[in-house]
Amino acid sequence: MSYLPVKQLLQTEPGQTVTVKGWVRTKRESKNAVFVAINDGSTIHTIQAVAEAGFLPDETLRLITTGACVAITGELVPSQGAGQAVEVQIADVHIYGPADPEKYPLQPKRHSLEFLREIAHLRPRTNTFSAILRIRHALAFAVHKYYNDNGFFYLNTPIITASDAEGAGEMFRVSTLDPLNPPKTEDGKVDYSQDFFGRETNLTVSGQLEGELGALALGKIYTFGPTFRAENSNTTRHLAEFWMIEPEMAFFELEDNMNLAEDFVKTVIRYALDNCADDLAFLENRLKEEEKTKKKEEQSEMTLTEKLRFVVDNDFERLTYTEAVEILRNSKPAKKGQFQYEVSWGIDLQSEHERYLVEKHFKKPVILTNYPRAIKSFYMKQDDESAAAPGPTVRAMDVLFPGIGEIIGGSQREDNLEKLTTRMAEVGIADEAIWWYLDTRRFGSAPHSGFGLGFERLVLFVSGMSNIRDVIPFPRAPKSAEF
Amino acid sequence: MSYLPVKQLLQTEPGQTVTVKGWVRTKRESKNAVFVAINDGSTIHTIQAVAEAGFLPDETLRLITTGACVAITGELVPSQGAGQAVEVQIADVHIYGPADPEKYPLQPKRHSLEFLREIAHLRPRTNTFSAILRIRHALAFAVHKYYNDNGFFYLNTPIITASDAEGAGEMFRVSTLDPLNPPKTEDGKVDYSQDFFGRETNLTVSGQLEGELGALALGKIYTFGPTFRAENSNTTRHLAEFWMIEPEMAFFELEDNMNLAEDFVKTVIRYALDNCADDLAFLENRLKEEEKTKKKEEQSEMTLTEKLRFVVDNDFERLTYTEAVEILRNSKPAKKGQFQYEVSWGIDLQSEHERYLVEKHFKKPVILTNYPRAIKSFYMKQDDESAAAPGPTVRAMDVLFPGIGEIIGGSQREDNLEKLTTRMAEVGIADEAIWWYLDTRRFGSAPHSGFGLGFERLVLFVSGMSNIRDVIPFPRAPKSAEF
Repeated sequence: MSYLPVKQLLQTEPGQTVTVKGWVRTKRESKNAVFVAINDGSTIHTIQAVAEAGFLPDETLRLITTGACVAITGELVPSQGAGQAVEVQIADVHIYGPADPEKYPLQPKRHSLEFLREIAHLRPRTNTFSAILRIRHALAFAVHKYYNDNGFFYLNTPIITASDAEGAGEMFRVSTLDPLNPPKTEDGKVDYSQDFFGRETNLTVSGQLEGELGALALGKIYTFGPTFRAENSNTTRHLAEFWMIEPEMAFFELEDNMNLAEDFVKTVIRYALDNCADDLAFLENRLKEEEKTKKKEEQSEMTLTEKLRFVVDNDFERLTYTEAVEILRNSKPAKKGQFQYEVSWGIDLQSEHERYLVEKHFKKPVILTNYPRAIKSFYMKQDDESAAAPGPTVRAMDVLFPGIGEIIGGSQREDNLEKLTTRMAEVGIADEAIWWYLDTRRFGSAPHSGFGLGFERLVLFVSGMSNIRDVIPFPRAPKSAEF
Repeated sequence: MSYLPVKQLLQTEPGQTVTVKGWVRTKRESKNAVFVAINDGSTIHTIQAVAEAGFLPDETLRLITTGACVAITGELVPSQGAGQAVEVQIADVHIYGPADPEKYPLQPKRHSLEFLREIAHLRPRTNTFSAILRIRHALAFAVHKYYNDNGFFYLNTPIITASDAEGAGEMFRVSTLDPLNPPKTEDGKVDYSQDFFGRETNLTVSGQLEGELGALALGKIYTFGPTFRAENSNTTRHLAEFWMIEPEMAFFELEDNMNLAEDFVKTVIRYALDNCADDLAFLENRLKEEEKTKKKEEQSEMTLTEKLRFVVDNDFERLTYTEAVEILRNSKPAKKGQFQYEVSWGIDLQSEHERYLVEKHFKKPVILTNYPRAIKSFYMKQDDESAAAPGPTVRAMDVLFPGIGEIIGGSQREDNLEKLTTRMAEVGIADEAIWWYLDTRRFGSAPHSGFGLGFERLVLFVSGMSNIRDVIPFPRAPKSAEF
């Protein structure tokens, strides 16, 4: 039997016989009728099915409970009630799978996000999580569409890697050796030459270095895949497994890189605004309710969609790290001693500093550039010495968002072999470890740039959620790998 | 300085000053002029830049060698030579990065695919690999577009997992424990409770089970992510790390599943035909040359694009496993004893059998269904007992392609809790191991189906390559994890 998803059914002209398949959200009985709200995941909305009291056999009625899966056939008629244009006049009900109200955890009441995290296998059946996942899908599609429209090629960089190129933190080891009795070398170390790949391997922390190989052949590439950090930190901002988008472009200098980052993030957010209005409206209300529990001064001045429109409609503020440090040193909180960490040129800016710049000083997204060399990665292009900064800087850029902090980090890449290897020696990376990376500077080196955007941070921003574990279907974190 | 990619430049009206940035493919000097062919990865084609003999300083001319990166500015003029509409009359040359002809491995001559695999960091700079990677991109985009257009939601299932649900083979262990001295339990086993996730974890072999959770909430979902097999097999068909597409649909039965699989694979191949004509033409010629080295009887009857059109334009042949076994038993090779493995009901069909059906008997893609239960996974829906098969069968389907064999494997899923757990007990899977999966059959169970398509097998088919290591940028295989 052919049928239409609820999303289409709700836009169908009344007057025809239809079948709706989905899960019961609520059942309501009045003296004269029974009302069943059905959702199938295609939209945040339910379609209402109605039967006169007594029409359905008791046996059937008893099985129509929250969570049960049903197929209901009947005429699509103009709805009598408010809130929907059409409803289904029930002629026949088939129960695919019941859901015992004594056992089914998702009863129609408010559940805490913490509780729902415990049942991540069922939470996509709730309004909140289905809305988040539909928005996550729309954003992912917008990412692919943006890069495809702009002449980029999707490049799958390796997940299992033998290089810790970013030096970005602790890594997960990947192995098939006997974990209890691994083979050993003569000097008592694990003999990885006998491992699956004949060497020690880990899960990637970034596809950037391989992405650069692609850009220096295909011109413009992007990655969009999982990356991993074995950091033992249980925060609302970090995951052990998360998805990253990393474009890399030959012939792009720092300013081109900034232009791309700003246009990219605005375009995908605009796509969500244009394509996810219903889900955003639901999450906007959810956020409003949540904010009511906060102190007045912690409540947001803007609603969720106002915040998104604001990002889309305004130019990001661009300034150098050095200029930002000046602003921070002359700021009220600095003078009143309200920053936990004192600001001086050379420090890694803390969340409190970034938030001050974005949320208090400029009140919009900010792109900071030309950071001190000492606090950035070896592969970033060194600036010429200049009087504008007290020390050596690199052509780095961080895009800072309200509430999120750093959402994008990138740079122009060092394309001079000698400067690159000198810097590698300073930070202790052997040339042999990434001989293939250095080859791109040996042969046909080109100016190029790129950045990385943590996809979950984007979904967090667009959905208005506050814990990153709530914007990925099955979060991976210390002591947590269920499902 | 703004500039256009070569792809756009080649379609630009002559008569304006342009800048081309890219890598020198060849330099040719005649008595009167020097011709430089430049490629930037945006297209298989090069743009020609021309200067009168003597115009360029010797120092510059010397650095214009294969692989060097240059920016050339000059007037775009109608080309004098054949093969291109426009060319650049050189006014200025800037050398970004030279490529010493004594050292740069990619000189303009034919390199073996084996050699290029050794320098996977540079091979995207060749015609063959840039064409493959552009086609790979187009196919990936077509996948996302297809599912987005058809109301599916992209679901990121976990990469690190605690369940070996498919039982699909050996897995890679993921750990942060001290590999030399892991903590041990009282009975001398590795104490994984002290590992990062508090339990033993592996890299996923399939996102299907989690995909089912998504489908039974959102209706229609698909995954597109990396999957892993720690099989120690060095073949032209297997990778340790590969990308898989796994759609999963509530309310789809086996026939809906077949319809979707056929429509999906045809649509993405059609997209490649429509959007990658130049790259396909190049690879078609490459294949023609390669086939000339084969014996007559091993040469393909169709060119690459003929083969693709044939798949797109014809209905796939659909038959049951039982019917296929009958055809095979009555086939010439069976009667002449030419099959290595004898055919009888219940065996897992071998490559020779599948190839006979696809390439000799039907001469088109084939969907085999209703396989013996004993050779398929526990989660496949059990058929009602029927006289049409000698033993118990399941609603499985395999899509078989010429030259590739199985490109898609899927099934309707068992939605009956009792039948599912009975089957799990038979094959030795504990209920507790996948309690969350079973919950979907406990609460609101629904008929549903899905399948998996190995992305590299699709790229292999569309590109006409014969080794799967040549259709992924950085292949991972036993003893091989470079780059």
